[in-house]
Amino acid sequence: MNRESLKESVRSQMPAARWQHTLGVVETSIRLAARYGADPDKAELAAILHDCCKSWPVDRQAAVIREHALSEDVLQYDKELWHAIAGAWVAEKEYGVNDPEVLDAIRYHTTGRAGMTLLEKVVCLADYIEPGRDFPAVNNIRELAEHSLEKALVAGFDSTIHFLLDRGKKIYPLTVLTRNALLFELESAGGTMREP
Amino acid sequence: MNRESLKESVRSQMPAARWQHTLGVVETSIRLAARYGADPDKAELAAILHDCCKSWPVDRQAAVIREHALSEDVLQYDKELWHAIAGAWVAEKEYGVNDPEVLDAIRYHTTGRAGMTLLEKVVCLADYIEPGRDFPAVNNIRELAEHSLEKALVAGFDSTIHFLLDRGKKIYPLTVLTRNALLFELESAGGTMREP
Repeated sequence: MNRESLKESVRSQMPAARWQHTLGVVETSIRLAARYGADPDKAELAAILHDCCKSWPVDRQAAVIREHALSEDVLQYDKELWHAIAGAWVAEKEYGVNDPEVLDAIRYHTTGRAGMTLLEKVVCLADYIEPGRDFPAVNNIRELAEHSLEKALVAGFDSTIHFLLDRGKKIYPLTVLTRNALLFELESAGGTMREP
Repeated sequence: MNRESLKESVRSQMPAARWQHTLGVVETSIRLAARYGADPDKAELAAILHDCCKSWPVDRQAAVIREHALSEDVLQYDKELWHAIAGAWVAEKEYGVNDPEVLDAIRYHTTGRAGMTLLEKVVCLADYIEPGRDFPAVNNIRELAEHSLEKALVAGFDSTIHFLLDRGKKIYPLTVLTRNALLFELESAGGTMREP
């Protein structure tokens, strides 16, 4: 499937506002990839597909996770997390993406993971800061993104964890492991990792 | 060692303010134990010993953890966490405590764990709310403690996680697993667990 047909197919499965968000993540992923030295083509492909099943009914997302035994523990946590894991499966099986780096960038775009690749960091951060995003910490995260992928991602996960605490929601353990891993990376690099 | 000699020995290893805090945790643990049906004698013993090595030099705390291979991962996290794990070892080996419930209440008084016992909840919560404590959320936690051990503990861990986020510190994974486990307990009990 060429890039335009792929975009058309993904667009057809979501409301206009979600597609607008996707285009924002595409644009920001390409920009961050260029800035930090990730592959812009892989960044674009992962960004197009990152929310490919986010607008599906959550039961259908859960069914994909359950039927294919994909990180089923996530089903005990916030529904907002499910589409990333289901989406990586859809990207592979329904869109024929076979690049594991791209699939992992889709799979981990919401939670991250310990040992994130550069591409995973780019797409995850782009999802926090694309131009359509508007939440209290977003301008701070955008500013940090000019200087350090890792510092910006820590600030992104901080905002997610604050959001969950304020609403009495459970915190998906991987989110905290990811934030800790980024802080360990920053410590061992003396606070200066992934400057452009 | 009788209770008075034990208190005298623990007192001698800490500054007056830390001993004052310990007496507050003893008093509050006994009160919470009576209210929620835990063993008041075990609660008192765990409370007397909960900070038994908190005033030791941190290198000595770390040495206990390293030499006896006790949850060594904790050494990558905040030093404030070390005394609980080292303290359980000291309580057993130096004070001859052999009741595993009491030792676990000391070991998990700072982080909690998934599946906390009633005694562990009592001592952990008492440590948050003893009369000498003064931090922004403490009155809210004290109020919740009148109605639900689990809700009060969730609020306690919320305050700890906020504190760590605000300072850019790593979050010990067990802290989040404990908070999630308490929320799962509250969900399955319909929000009404451990009311007195």
